[in-house]
Amino acid sequence: MDLALLAVELLGTFAFAVSGALLAARKGFDVVGSLLLASMAGLGGGVTRDIIIGEGTPAAFSQPIYLAPVLVAVVLVLTGLLHETRLRRTLLVFDAVGLSLFCLTGTVIAYNAGLNEIACVLLGVTTAVGGGAMRDVVANETPQIFNPRGVYAVPAMFGAGLMVIVLSYELPLIWAGLVVSSLVFALRMISLKRGWRVPLAGRRSGRAAISDGGT
Amino acid sequence: MDLALLAVELLGTFAFAVSGALLAARKGFDVVGSLLLASMAGLGGGVTRDIIIGEGTPAAFSQPIYLAPVLVAVVLVLTGLLHETRLRRTLLVFDAVGLSLFCLTGTVIAYNAGLNEIACVLLGVTTAVGGGAMRDVVANETPQIFNPRGVYAVPAMFGAGLMVIVLSYELPLIWAGLVVSSLVFALRMISLKRGWRVPLAGRRSGRAAISDGGT
Amino acid sequence: MDLALLAVELLGTFAFAVSGALLAARKGFDVVGSLLLASMAGLGGGVTRDIIIGEGTPAAFSQPIYLAPVLVAVVLVLTGLLHETRLRRTLLVFDAVGLSLFCLTGTVIAYNAGLNEIACVLLGVTTAVGGGAMRDVVANETPQIFNPRGVYAVPAMFGAGLMVIVLSYELPLIWAGLVVSSLVFALRMISLKRGWRVPLAGRRSGRAAISDGGT
Repeated sequence: MDLALLAVELLGTFAFAVSGALLAARKGFDVVGSLLLASMAGLGGGVTRDIIIGEGTPAAFSQPIYLAPVLVAVVLVLTGLLHETRLRRTLLVFDAVGLSLFCLTGTVIAYNAGLNEIACVLLGVTTAVGGGAMRDVVANETPQIFNPRGVYAVPAMFGAGLMVIVLSYELPLIWAGLVVSSLVFALRMISLKRGWRVPLAGRRSGRAAISDGGT
Repeated sequence: MDLALLAVELLGTFAFAVSGALLAARKGFDVVGSLLLASMAGLGGGVTRDIIIGEGTPAAFSQPIYLAPVLVAVVLVLTGLLHETRLRRTLLVFDAVGLSLFCLTGTVIAYNAGLNEIACVLLGVTTAVGGGAMRDVVANETPQIFNPRGVYAVPAMFGAGLMVIVLSYELPLIWAGLVVSSLVFALRMISLKRGWRVPLAGRRSGRAAISDGGT
Repeated sequence: MDLALLAVELLGTFAFAVSGALLAARKGFDVVGSLLLASMAGLGGGVTRDIIIGEGTPAAFSQPIYLAPVLVAVVLVLTGLLHETRLRRTLLVFDAVGLSLFCLTGTVIAYNAGLNEIACVLLGVTTAVGGGAMRDVVANETPQIFNPRGVYAVPAMFGAGLMVIVLSYELPLIWAGLVVSSLVFALRMISLKRGWRVPLAGRRSGRAAISDGGT
C-alpha cells in the first residue's frame, strides 16, 4: 500500500480508537474492554471494507502496524491524558476526524481494487461509518449515525463522492485528500454545533422515538 | 446472474428496505438513518450470503442496480405513501415478503456456487433472516426472529429445504419458486394472525423474559 | 482438516452452543430462537475467523458436521437435561470451555493458513470471543467481554500467545493444546470466583456505568 495512504489509515484508526476508548471509559468498562472497543471502532470499518472487497486477509490483520494506534489510544485514555469533558465533545471530535479520514481511504482503496464508481462511494461510506456503528452496537448504544442531531453519513457520502471525482480525473491525491477530509470534518462539526437536522424518515406514530439529547 | 433471479432479488430487497424505512420512521430517525436502515435490511442478508460464499465482491456492491429498490422504498415511506398502521401490520407484511423471496434466492445462489445441500439451506435461511436481524440489532430492537409470537425462521427453513429439492430434481425454477415463496409467505402471515408459537427453549428462570406484544 | 483439530472445534462449538441455548431459555425465546442463538454462539466465532482468513466458504457452512453439536446442545437445554442454576453458573462454565478451546483452534487454523504471528493471536482471540459477543449483542445483552467482573479476553490472548509459541517451536500440538486450554479455562473460572478485575479504562464521568452484578 502507498505510504501516504497507510499514514492516513493509521491516523483515522487512531481517531476512532480514541472514540472507542472514551466510550469504554464512560460505560465503566475495564482496560481490556477498552482495548476491544477501541479495536472495533478503529479497525471495524476497514476490516468490513476489506472483507467486502474480498482480496484476502484484511489489512488490519495482515499488517500488525494497525494495532499501534489502537494501543496508543487506549493508553492515552487510560492515563487520563485524553478524557471526556462534561459535554462529551472530545469523543465527538475524534469520531469526526476518523469519519473524515476513513471516507477518503475507503474510497481510494476500493478504487484501487477496481470497483465501479458507485461501489467506491458505498465502500467509502461503509468504511467511515462501519467502525463507529460497531462500537455503538456492541456497547449497546443507539449508533451515532441514527442520532437525528447533526449530520453524520451525509458528509461521508459527500467526501466519498468528491474522492471518486478526484480519482477519475487523476487529480493530485494528497492535496485533494487534504481538502476533502477538511471539508468533511468541518461539515460534521458545524452540523453538531448548529444542530443541523435532515428531515425525519416518515410520519411518526408517536412511540419509541429516541431522545434527542445525545449519543 | 439470471434475469429472473435478479428480479426476485430486487423485489426482496425492496420489501425488506420498506421494513427498514418504516422502522426508521417509527424510531424517529432522519432520512439518512432511514437510508442506512433500509440498506441494511434490504442488502444485509445478501451481502452476508455473498461474503460467506466467498466469490469476490458481493452483488449489492458490484451491481449498482441493487440500490434502486432501497431508494424507492425510502422515498415511498418519506412521502407517506407507505406508512405503518396503528397495528404495525405494514412493516410485518413487507418483512414477510422479503423473507419469502430471500430464502429462495439465497438457496439458489448458494446452489449455483456449488455448495452442498445443507449449506444451501443454511445460506437460504441466513439470507432470509440476516437483513432483518441486522435492521433490528442496529436499531436496538430485539430481533424479530426471537419474537415468540408467530414463526419466522421456520417458514424460511421450510422454503429453503423445498428449493433444494426443486434444484436437485431440476424442476422448473420459476413456477416452483412462485409456489414455494407463496407458501412461505402464507405460513408466516397465518402464524402471525393465529399467534402460533413453537415451544419455549427451556425452563424459564422467571427473569428477563421479553415481552410478548410487539416487534 | 486434521481430525484432532476438528474434534476440538466441535467440542468448542458444543460448549458455546449450550451457552447460547441457555441464554435463549433465560430470555424466554422459543426453540427456533434457541437454535439461532446457539448457532450464533457456537459457529459465529469460527465463521468470522474463516471470513477474515478469506480462503473460501467457512467450515461451518461447508462441513455439515458442525451443525451436530448445535443440535445436541439445543436438545439438551430443551429437555431440561442442562439448565441454569439460580447463579447462572452453568452458562458461564460452558462459555469458559468454549473460550479455552476456540482460542486454540483459532490460532492453529490461522497459523496453518500462513498468517503472521500477531495475526494468529488476533484471530485466536477473535474466534474465542466472537461467537459469545454475537450471542450477547443479538440477544440485546451487554457482551460478557465488557463485564468488569472477572477476566475474559485476557485468558484468550494468553492462550493464543502460548499456542503461537507452541506452533513456532513445533512442540507436540495435542499435549500442548491440552495444557494451554486447561490454563485458559482455569484462569477464566478462578477470575470469576475471585472477582478479579483489570483496571478501569479511564476516568469515570459518573454516568452510564453498567451494573456489576451480571452478564
